[in-house]
Amino acid sequence: MDYYKESLKLHELNRGKLAITSKVPLKNKDDLSLAYTPGVAQPCLEIKNCPEDIYRYTAKGNMVAVVTDGSAVLGLGNIGAKASLPVMEGKAVLFKEFGGIDAIPICIETQNPEEIICIIKNISTGFGGINLEDISAPRCFEIEEKLQSQLDIPVFHDDQHGTAIVTSAALINALKVVGKNLQDSKVVINGAGAAGVAIAKMLLSLGITDLLLCNRSGILCGDRPDILDSERLKIAKRTNPKMRRGSLADAVKGADIFIGVSGPGVLTGEMIETMNQDSVIFAMSNPEPEVLPEIAIMAGAKVIGTGRSDYPNQINNVLAFPGLFKGALSVRAKKITETMKAAAAYAIAGMVKNEELSADYIIPSPLRKDVADAVAAAVADAWRKEGEPDAVSD
Amino acid sequence: MDYYKESLKLHELNRGKLAITSKVPLKNKDDLSLAYTPGVAQPCLEIKNCPEDIYRYTAKGNMVAVVTDGSAVLGLGNIGAKASLPVMEGKAVLFKEFGGIDAIPICIETQNPEEIICIIKNISTGFGGINLEDISAPRCFEIEEKLQSQLDIPVFHDDQHGTAIVTSAALINALKVVGKNLQDSKVVINGAGAAGVAIAKMLLSLGITDLLLCNRSGILCGDRPDILDSERLKIAKRTNPKMRRGSLADAVKGADIFIGVSGPGVLTGEMIETMNQDSVIFAMSNPEPEVLPEIAIMAGAKVIGTGRSDYPNQINNVLAFPGLFKGALSVRAKKITETMKAAAAYAIAGMVKNEELSADYIIPSPLRKDVADAVAAAVADAWRKEGEPDAVSD
Repeated sequence: MDYYKESLKLHELNRGKLAITSKVPLKNKDDLSLAYTPGVAQPCLEIKNCPEDIYRYTAKGNMVAVVTDGSAVLGLGNIGAKASLPVMEGKAVLFKEFGGIDAIPICIETQNPEEIICIIKNISTGFGGINLEDISAPRCFEIEEKLQSQLDIPVFHDDQHGTAIVTSAALINALKVVGKNLQDSKVVINGAGAAGVAIAKMLLSLGITDLLLCNRSGILCGDRPDILDSERLKIAKRTNPKMRRGSLADAVKGADIFIGVSGPGVLTGEMIETMNQDSVIFAMSNPEPEVLPEIAIMAGAKVIGTGRSDYPNQINNVLAFPGLFKGALSVRAKKITETMKAAAAYAIAGMVKNEELSADYIIPSPLRKDVADAVAAAVADAWRKEGEPDAVSD
Repeated sequence: MDYYKESLKLHELNRGKLAITSKVPLKNKDDLSLAYTPGVAQPCLEIKNCPEDIYRYTAKGNMVAVVTDGSAVLGLGNIGAKASLPVMEGKAVLFKEFGGIDAIPICIETQNPEEIICIIKNISTGFGGINLEDISAPRCFEIEEKLQSQLDIPVFHDDQHGTAIVTSAALINALKVVGKNLQDSKVVINGAGAAGVAIAKMLLSLGITDLLLCNRSGILCGDRPDILDSERLKIAKRTNPKMRRGSLADAVKGADIFIGVSGPGVLTGEMIETMNQDSVIFAMSNPEPEVLPEIAIMAGAKVIGTGRSDYPNQINNVLAFPGLFKGALSVRAKKITETMKAAAAYAIAGMVKNEELSADYIIPSPLRKDVADAVAAAVADAWRKEGEPDAVSD
């Protein structure tokens, strides 16, 4: 199927992908008097007297805003708010289909972080959570952090944490297949954008200790404040305390795991040959991965994951965000903590039974509808156990 | 039925009134590849290359934002953004039920007009129209006018124009019943808030020439810049060029028509007795009208309308806004003009056939589902005939 051509047809035929429905009847005079005036005055007054009752009498508790400024849409770059709307509608309908969550696209015209924060904060009233989407780095870090500090509902940048959670889930199972553990594995992440930085942080919090983060210039090193912004500098210092330098080829020598969130073809078979035995390769650049699975296998890699549905082990965010929000909303969590993210990763990994695990099956299919509920239960449980934890640490 | 108690139950049982649905299937790999990655990249690129294509490939063209700051909600006053959400959800589901329009509540926390304008402008990307709701006067005038001047989609404050349109429709038919015409009728409007001012403007544009606007202090007079803001001063000068002064009782003497958008019980039987023969009384304060219909009839009024469903002639905005937006969206009108509003009023009036007209039947029931389509057709036609008219005049 020509996805590009067919997708255009589908979008045009349906005039987009999203519609609103009423959960209450509106057929007769009484219906109108209950859903609207005069009856609606009563829930209004209840909420006025007790603001927390907004969760009781409105759709807020199951409503998520999918917010973007269109600055980093898919692999298309800064295409702006208007052109990003099809993606945001897509995300919204995935929220519903996989998590039962009502989600609404909000595409913001300004790309000024302070203005974006102010706008989202002011329109957050009707939403139980904010899913930030396709906002470029490093702006995404600041926007998420500042917004979360001002709101008491979860603010979650999916390109960062959704990707980190699903990658972690895949890695947990991949290591079982190759018989290695997190603590002793050497990891190289190529790509130091939103996803790469978030994956690095999450793997460190899960117990990985040897991790190098690379970008186009090679290994990120914390002594280069002249070329790295504060967020990248911070993660460079954490991941590379010995101030190692070199190219991606230098970084992968002797590594157990390569995680690519960068661009097509940057990892060669020769580089993979220099990695440790039974290496794990997640080449998630989409649609063209960092290395084609067949090349990686030929070069000695044991487990390969990509973002594509036509190879085994598709590492896809839809495994995480619907269940994560569903769980967080179910307990009215005020934010998404590291513990909740870890719980989500282990829940996704747990959807593949140990006896089913193989090099070609480390992660459940993105189409499986039972994943979100398992993730939701684990995430809700993690929040309950933590009580009201402090802010997510870096 | 106890509407207040039952409404609470209904809202709690359903957790609000609004849900999202997908218009496209999401069951298999191909579905996901078309609605989301990789296929969705194509509509994004089309829109990037031709911004107008956002109407072709997204839900924008049928999507309306119902926006409030919670400053003047129903008769409850400034109850704030959170407490206003049940009303906005109600409005949204009425949009769908009566106009087939997808509408989303946006409750804004700030009540600063400049900030509200900036926020709505920045999030307008995904919407084909903006319905402003329950924003207090005089802020609503400034917000609507400035926002419309900055956006190329319709911005419509329903408390102003929706009320004006439906009131005008009722008046057109009431005058047929009493055998008077617009040009020779003397009108008194009591209440100079958003609705009162908008009704005054619309009646002037429809051909009424003798009109007095009153508030709690009596007849509005254009020589009082010390107590009137610029909007009220402007309408006072237009409606009352002879600088008449006096109380509401003075104003109604010899009047043909009383329109109340004020508060309960302000119009007495004695006052009605001083009006011209066959007077028309629209007492729209809700739930307690300016005068009870039975008192008005006893005092000699011929046609009575209220906002209530338990009396004849319920003057209810739901007769206007769904069809008005439906028509405007269908032709991608860039604003709602005076001509379109007049077309809507005459279309609503036209839904009662001349042979059916009576003192007890001047306006169709708010439950009639055929009104919106008639209004939509008339409004679309008006826009087409005007071409691209200049801004709405005051």
